[in-house]
Amino acid sequence: MKKVYFTVGPSEILPSIPIFTKQAINDQIFSLSHRGKVFEQLFENAVSQLRKLLLIPSSYQVFFISSGTEAMEKIIQNCVKQKCLHIINGRFAERFYKTALELGKNAQRYDATGSFSAEDLQVRKNIELIAFTQNDTSTGMAIPLQEIYKTARKYPEALIAIDAVSSIPYVDINYKKVDSVFFSVQKGFGMPSGLGILILSPRSINKAKQLKEKGVSIGSYHSFISLLQFADIKQTPDTPNVFAIYLFEKVIKEFLKKGIENIRKETESKANTLYEFFEKSQIYSPLITDNNFRSKTTLIVTVRGGSKGVVKYLLDRGIVIGKGYGERKDQDIRIANFPAHTKKDIKLLINLLKKYAGTLRS
Amino acid sequence: MKKVYFTVGPSEILPSIPIFTKQAINDQIFSLSHRGKVFEQLFENAVSQLRKLLLIPSSYQVFFISSGTEAMEKIIQNCVKQKCLHIINGRFAERFYKTALELGKNAQRYDATGSFSAEDLQVRKNIELIAFTQNDTSTGMAIPLQEIYKTARKYPEALIAIDAVSSIPYVDINYKKVDSVFFSVQKGFGMPSGLGILILSPRSINKAKQLKEKGVSIGSYHSFISLLQFADIKQTPDTPNVFAIYLFEKVIKEFLKKGIENIRKETESKANTLYEFFEKSQIYSPLITDNNFRSKTTLIVTVRGGSKGVVKYLLDRGIVIGKGYGERKDQDIRIANFPAHTKKDIKLLINLLKKYAGTLRS
Repeated sequence: MKKVYFTVGPSEILPSIPIFTKQAINDQIFSLSHRGKVFEQLFENAVSQLRKLLLIPSSYQVFFISSGTEAMEKIIQNCVKQKCLHIINGRFAERFYKTALELGKNAQRYDATGSFSAEDLQVRKNIELIAFTQNDTSTGMAIPLQEIYKTARKYPEALIAIDAVSSIPYVDINYKKVDSVFFSVQKGFGMPSGLGILILSPRSINKAKQLKEKGVSIGSYHSFISLLQFADIKQTPDTPNVFAIYLFEKVIKEFLKKGIENIRKETESKANTLYEFFEKSQIYSPLITDNNFRSKTTLIVTVRGGSKGVVKYLLDRGIVIGKGYGERKDQDIRIANFPAHTKKDIKLLINLLKKYAGTLRS
Repeated sequence: MKKVYFTVGPSEILPSIPIFTKQAINDQIFSLSHRGKVFEQLFENAVSQLRKLLLIPSSYQVFFISSGTEAMEKIIQNCVKQKCLHIINGRFAERFYKTALELGKNAQRYDATGSFSAEDLQVRKNIELIAFTQNDTSTGMAIPLQEIYKTARKYPEALIAIDAVSSIPYVDINYKKVDSVFFSVQKGFGMPSGLGILILSPRSINKAKQLKEKGVSIGSYHSFISLLQFADIKQTPDTPNVFAIYLFEKVIKEFLKKGIENIRKETESKANTLYEFFEKSQIYSPLITDNNFRSKTTLIVTVRGGSKGVVKYLLDRGIVIGKGYGERKDQDIRIANFPAHTKKDIKLLINLLKKYAGTLRS
């Protein structure tokens, strides 16, 4: 039986992915050199169409890397000599913070459990970068963009980094107001895993150049300088996941055709349907209580009596949802709401969640 | 028209890859979580079968990373505090050397243009790692394993690193005699690009631990320590290219069925056929003149009158070969001889190379 995946990524793929894959095989994309003209055209199309889809300014760079986790490492290496600050709203924010520590930086953490206000934030002197996990899939907490922009205005010297791994293309970022944004394709782009996208402001690139001049190690093949050198000739420093870039280009085209506004409205509408159901339920309660901080793309819900039963109940009926993250695995369920999830899928999910709740009452 | 790819990687894929891809789609591998039991089983099968195929000792670790280029960075970061030595037999050896410099190491280079003898090698004191590019695809120069083992015996204190990106599974490495070996799947495994494999001795892992204890930065999510932590639970630190790991597991099984000895004999036989043809030719001469140092898997051949004509002649007839590397692009051609290339393919190639030579004479 074909299952529907509501896991937070890898997740359900777009229905067009198998078709694009067949095309890739026919076009012999699996054999395509990353140093030839066909690849360069693919690279250019993917980047230019992504700029169009997300309104990325032409002065900003778009790089292909391997994963969101890699983006964290590269941002810290290339933008921080000593001090950075991490807004901690979940385990992925902690991963970002830990990355900075592992790279020998003097990283500060600021607790943002359940909510965050730029006004309350107090930052030490000489913080070079403030890192946000805009949508943390361990807690289902999203930080409103306005709070991120306010932080940027309050600390104009600091570079602003945004982990938007699981919220793009839903989240409508004003790139001019921030310095680095990254995401993965196996979430909001309905693709298989194995490709990360890194978007960088001129300030970020300049910072990398400064650090390099000062003799700070900014890494090797995937330093911003090396990535830029190759992006200038529409290539990557290493052999990339060519197939993923091929799929990505096709998915962006599809999204452009559908219209980003429609995708965002649909995401919002599906999220509202889900939250309304949970709000009324005696069994399911969203982990994040303040509606302003609730993720629209990855919903984390605590289940009365534990999550094991409902995960199995749904799985037996062809619906795959995630367990809670880490130590909360037996308490929460995690549900993705990406463009690949149809309204019909959401209806089916809610229906089964209801039925499961019914089995508890009886 | 379906083309045959003799490019050095990405290259021709195995005929089973489209079939495995279809299976992957049916099995919903594109949606598979990298934190679940199905993935863990896949990880375990791939690693245990690779051990069987290549005779990797059980004390050695096998890690999944993104590319061969990434392997270079990770080996330098995790195995070198200050000093390393690079045997330079081509541009990929230079890439490895440059990586060490970019990471702030005191890297030494040793010229090995066209040949290499462990006997002649003189190494400075306190060299922590000696890096070999066993098969350099820019020059077509392969370093005999015996010379690498001799080097290891001569400098027992140094860790021995081998870039075998384009020679595994052909090259029959005695892993016990070396410390790190890496390769990519888009070469000898006939797969699409986007996955690198890193094989490490206990000494390499211990060195990483020592460096970490001394406060040297060994990187973050893909440090040997982090990779090991996750490999212990049959996972990867980041979201990997799950589809590639799925294909890899299937390809190894196929190779085991065929028998590694058969694969190696076939590679050798096809290489000999090609070199015999080139030896007799007035037009084509292998760049590496000493037969002991000629690559069996990536043949670089200088073309009298330049390479442009023959590359186009073959392309028009459905055969894709590589131009020379970098500044030699208009002088050489590069031809891969991987398990995905059949004897029939090689015959067809030679036939067309002959015909092209004929057009020059007339």
